Amino acid sequence: MALNFSLDAHDTHTHARAGRMATAHGEVLTPAFMPVGTQGAVKTLTPDDLSAAGTDIILANTYHMYLRPGVETVRQMGGLHRFMSWDRAILTDSGGFQVLSMSELRKVSDRGVEFRSHLDGSRHFIGPEEAIRIQDGLGTDIAMSFDELVDLPAEPAVVKQSVDRTLDWAARGLAERERLRDQGRGAIALFGINQGGVDPAERRRCFDGLASMPFDGYALGGLWVGESKSLSLEMVEQDCARFPADRPRYLMGVGHPVDVLDAVARGVDMFDCVLPTRNARRGTVFVSTGRLVVKNAAYANDPRPLDPDCGCYTCRRFSRAYLRHLFAAGETLAMRLASLHAVTQLVGLARRARAAILEGSFREFREAFLTRFRSGETLIAAQGSSG
Amino acid sequence: MALNFSLDAHDTHTHARAGRMATAHGEVLTPAFMPVGTQGAVKTLTPDDLSAAGTDIILANTYHMYLRPGVETVRQMGGLHRFMSWDRAILTDSGGFQVLSMSELRKVSDRGVEFRSHLDGSRHFIGPEEAIRIQDGLGTDIAMSFDELVDLPAEPAVVKQSVDRTLDWAARGLAERERLRDQGRGAIALFGINQGGVDPAERRRCFDGLASMPFDGYALGGLWVGESKSLSLEMVEQDCARFPADRPRYLMGVGHPVDVLDAVARGVDMFDCVLPTRNARRGTVFVSTGRLVVKNAAYANDPRPLDPDCGCYTCRRFSRAYLRHLFAAGETLAMRLASLHAVTQLVGLARRARAAILEGSFREFREAFLTRFRSGETLIAAQGSSG
Repeated sequence: MALNFSLDAHDTHTHARAGRMATAHGEVLTPAFMPVGTQGAVKTLTPDDLSAAGTDIILANTYHMYLRPGVETVRQMGGLHRFMSWDRAILTDSGGFQVLSMSELRKVSDRGVEFRSHLDGSRHFIGPEEAIRIQDGLGTDIAMSFDELVDLPAEPAVVKQSVDRTLDWAARGLAERERLRDQGRGAIALFGINQGGVDPAERRRCFDGLASMPFDGYALGGLWVGESKSLSLEMVEQDCARFPADRPRYLMGVGHPVDVLDAVARGVDMFDCVLPTRNARRGTVFVSTGRLVVKNAAYANDPRPLDPDCGCYTCRRFSRAYLRHLFAAGETLAMRLASLHAVTQLVGLARRARAAILEGSFREFREAFLTRFRSGETLIAAQGSSG
Repeated sequence: MALNFSLDAHDTHTHARAGRMATAHGEVLTPAFMPVGTQGAVKTLTPDDLSAAGTDIILANTYHMYLRPGVETVRQMGGLHRFMSWDRAILTDSGGFQVLSMSELRKVSDRGVEFRSHLDGSRHFIGPEEAIRIQDGLGTDIAMSFDELVDLPAEPAVVKQSVDRTLDWAARGLAERERLRDQGRGAIALFGINQGGVDPAERRRCFDGLASMPFDGYALGGLWVGESKSLSLEMVEQDCARFPADRPRYLMGVGHPVDVLDAVARGVDMFDCVLPTRNARRGTVFVSTGRLVVKNAAYANDPRPLDPDCGCYTCRRFSRAYLRHLFAAGETLAMRLASLHAVTQLVGLARRARAAILEGSFREFREAFLTRFRSGETLIAAQGSSG
């Protein structure tokens, strides 16, 4: 199999679990946070930076890599790992989300999605088979099934249709992987994506369909898109209760530290999110005591590191005053140093949660984390001007 | 003394020399290229990147640091070295060039320069005494004397006035350092700047004035500003012939590899220039076989590193195809990786020139470098479209 997932420990008080996935590019310890390399690079960071942060898996965007530089270039350069000079695991999304949210003049049918590139207006078509072939061509370790999302709130009939399509496309993606394997290709793991929005019955129906298919893992799709937090967590609970225990579970697009721990407690193994690094590039980072807006003038003479509890290069070497200066002066080094901290923070949080699960102290770890995260210690309330 | 300069070797065929300066922040081997940290950071790079490139001295801009974050903030944060987390040597320019080229509504008199900040229009005054106090306040290792540049071509009377002022300001800067030393401060080395444009007699007159003053080193000012290359080199020859052999010589604003070797051959020890890194951020770098426009579409499928002869992280790990992709996709990692190569290239060139001088083979080294630099090997001629 392309993916060998095993569980090292279950928490006794929650549904949290510690596992490991063996891939062709090293082992991935779970829970795991995956930094996002949208265009073949985690913005501002090198592979060495990611390794120093403890990263053993990143996410790359199929839609972006397909349009630019193109699958053929990546293939000629030896595949995505070699192209990016990243020798650990890569998960690619299916491209479905970006096709529906970024491209122009899209036309969705049962066959797939016809669209125009947001870069140059050129015409393209991606369906479930194409999505698998593209991801296989990029040389990913873990591919995602092509799915259809709906904008919430949506009419029940729309949700139902998206579940029907997601199930049909899931089966067709798996069949395409079989065809590739017959040709000596297709050495990719493939995850199914559960949809159904926040309708419990539709999510159950979707999973019941996926359950009969030989997926290597399951993703929780269509959540954290504007619905209430309690409703999201209910859906996570329900999905995780139905997903087979011996497959990894991936909650897409979630990266707030509190949400990560809430989902780990409900049995989720993998996460990705662009927000921690996007916010970092804009001067806001999570630290162990909350959210720090380092661009703020209040930090102009603050000699402390972003997070005295953090061991990343940025926190070991630079003061808030220096970072604030770099942001004020428009130096891109600011984005780089803040991104390095942000990735270290999230990857490290998942790794510390794992250690706590192994030790049988996840509940205490989570409580202590939340108490400290809500303390606001060493933070200064944001002011009107960031001077 | 603040600066202990000694010579390790003289080339027998040219005026090239290999030396070393002992500063409070480590030894600087010469010839040396100084990367420029305009706003307290060498754009996109960390101190570790600079160290990995072999850098032992950087340049910081007095005008920029004075306006933002301000001397008081830098002083409170423990000085410029600690603020930037750079524990090797720093040379600061005097601020004169930026005051005259960047600020608004400037008014120059014998006292100094009254100007408005280019950032917020606030009023400021910097004269020769202020320039020394600001540089001392930043905690630099090597300060530069406040000088007046003239735009070339200039009337003889204008050049004469600028030499008179430069000499007066040089003496006043040294006197200010004495006053600071009486107060237990002023532990900075101070370089005088030779002016006089491309008028040999005025440059001689300027140096004859400076020669009687106890400067720790001498800079060649007002060159490489549009005059012919042969004229520039004549001025370099003349200046170096008059400067005392036991003091370091710094050619300001020069960083083209060929110019660096031409000037080393005439006795120059130190260089700085923003162009190599500015060009790198725009996708053009020097490699050992010439000038490579990596943004060019011709490199879209080129698996070779920027420079197969270079050992920098960028060249060890990434292809031209990948860098070209990052530039095309607008990823700032492109600027970082190209800047790292550019700094490694220039710092390494000066270091290799030094090794050749020590070995007695500088002439052969320079000839071999120029032959290879002009070969254009592995480069593809620029095309109309960069895709």
